[in-house]
Amino acid sequence: MKTIVAFSTAHYERNIRCSSWRLAVETNNIIRFKTVPAKCKDYIRKYILGKQYSADTKEVLSEAYSYAKSIDIIKGGNYTWVFNIDDTLLSNVQYYASRGFGTKPRNVTSFNHWIQHGKSRALPHSLKLYNKLLGLHYKIVLITKRPESQRKITVKNLRDAGYRQYAKIIFKDTTKERYIGKTTLVYKSHERKILEKEGFRIIGNIGDQWSDILGTSASIRSFKLPNPLY
Amino acid sequence: MKTIVAFSTAHYERNIRCSSWRLAVETNNIIRFKTVPAKCKDYIRKYILGKQYSADTKEVLSEAYSYAKSIDIIKGGNYTWVFNIDDTLLSNVQYYASRGFGTKPRNVTSFNHWIQHGKSRALPHSLKLYNKLLGLHYKIVLITKRPESQRKITVKNLRDAGYRQYAKIIFKDTTKERYIGKTTLVYKSHERKILEKEGFRIIGNIGDQWSDILGTSASIRSFKLPNPLY
Repeated sequence: MKTIVAFSTAHYERNIRCSSWRLAVETNNIIRFKTVPAKCKDYIRKYILGKQYSADTKEVLSEAYSYAKSIDIIKGGNYTWVFNIDDTLLSNVQYYASRGFGTKPRNVTSFNHWIQHGKSRALPHSLKLYNKLLGLHYKIVLITKRPESQRKITVKNLRDAGYRQYAKIIFKDTTKERYIGKTTLVYKSHERKILEKEGFRIIGNIGDQWSDILGTSASIRSFKLPNPLY
Repeated sequence: MKTIVAFSTAHYERNIRCSSWRLAVETNNIIRFKTVPAKCKDYIRKYILGKQYSADTKEVLSEAYSYAKSIDIIKGGNYTWVFNIDDTLLSNVQYYASRGFGTKPRNVTSFNHWIQHGKSRALPHSLKLYNKLLGLHYKIVLITKRPESQRKITVKNLRDAGYRQYAKIIFKDTTKERYIGKTTLVYKSHERKILEKEGFRIIGNIGDQWSDILGTSASIRSFKLPNPLY
């Protein structure tokens, strides 16, 4: 009996520690981590595949919709909503499941193969919000750090997943000198600045990474989707 | 039997929803909420009084210490760490426990009475980090939105709780016209700008509210302590 109790307590303590780790990642306290801690593999697997990840996503997007509705949108007024793509509109959970739910580092070759496969599914709550924002007459702009070379497969994957209507989709032009060696935060800030100069009025912005929503020319209000995988 | 199962599922679902609510608050997705949702009272009470809140705090402060240690501090170089006070250095959990763990709105009279009582305890992990930062020769600066009128009792409470050594403590001068009707974010950003002009080099910053750590003249790296109570 004693052994069972000891095991059970250790498991409980590990869940507490993994929950703290996840919260610290989501709140931008733990940054630039390479992989999910090995001891948290089971915890993260249950989190992602169970009800909590879906519920956490729904809560954020429901708040985003309340905010979006509260804005007095004038049709043709260039009211814009910016979306990130990976693990914001399209889910890569299937890929990360094959990499030990983030406990193994992302492999460039296999990840590009996954992208080129073009079978990423929509995050269901994101697709719902996307359609609701179109209904409210927001212009949608997608900014991704996927390179230009993945434009064709990405547009097709988005269309297959239900994302068919957007004013603009911006890929990272890796040949541009200004982006060489620069962070995603710098790249995305600069692209948003260009959008503003073009007349887009960025009201909302949603991403699963802090680098999607921090920086300059950010929206009036930004939303951070959960993602403990990377 | 059926009733019991139904009750149990409802409880489970409520915990999922309350967990999503808490995450959305911690990640700055839900903002300016007036009270904790009534249905989450029991969930938040267990979170705060159980092991998770303490573990979540410890995780953030442990990460902060790793960062603090990684900086090459030169003694006398004005390397500075900024702390918020309420629910960062001193805990008001006892007060909020009397207000239904955030489910009842803060009452100005009773909260001021609590502050004037001067019996707030240190958050144990914060006190440890505070002492470690002093050991690393950081200058400590405290910025609080408590008014000047609470200076004496606050300094005494801090001393009693173990916080005895800081370069500066800044209270909100509510008679200053620039702060009338301004947010905490504006007030704290401005005070940090003054610090910078005075030669303080802000390396780290810790608070339990996003208004403590967003804005301008922020530190190189900021840390957000958990607080689902307000």
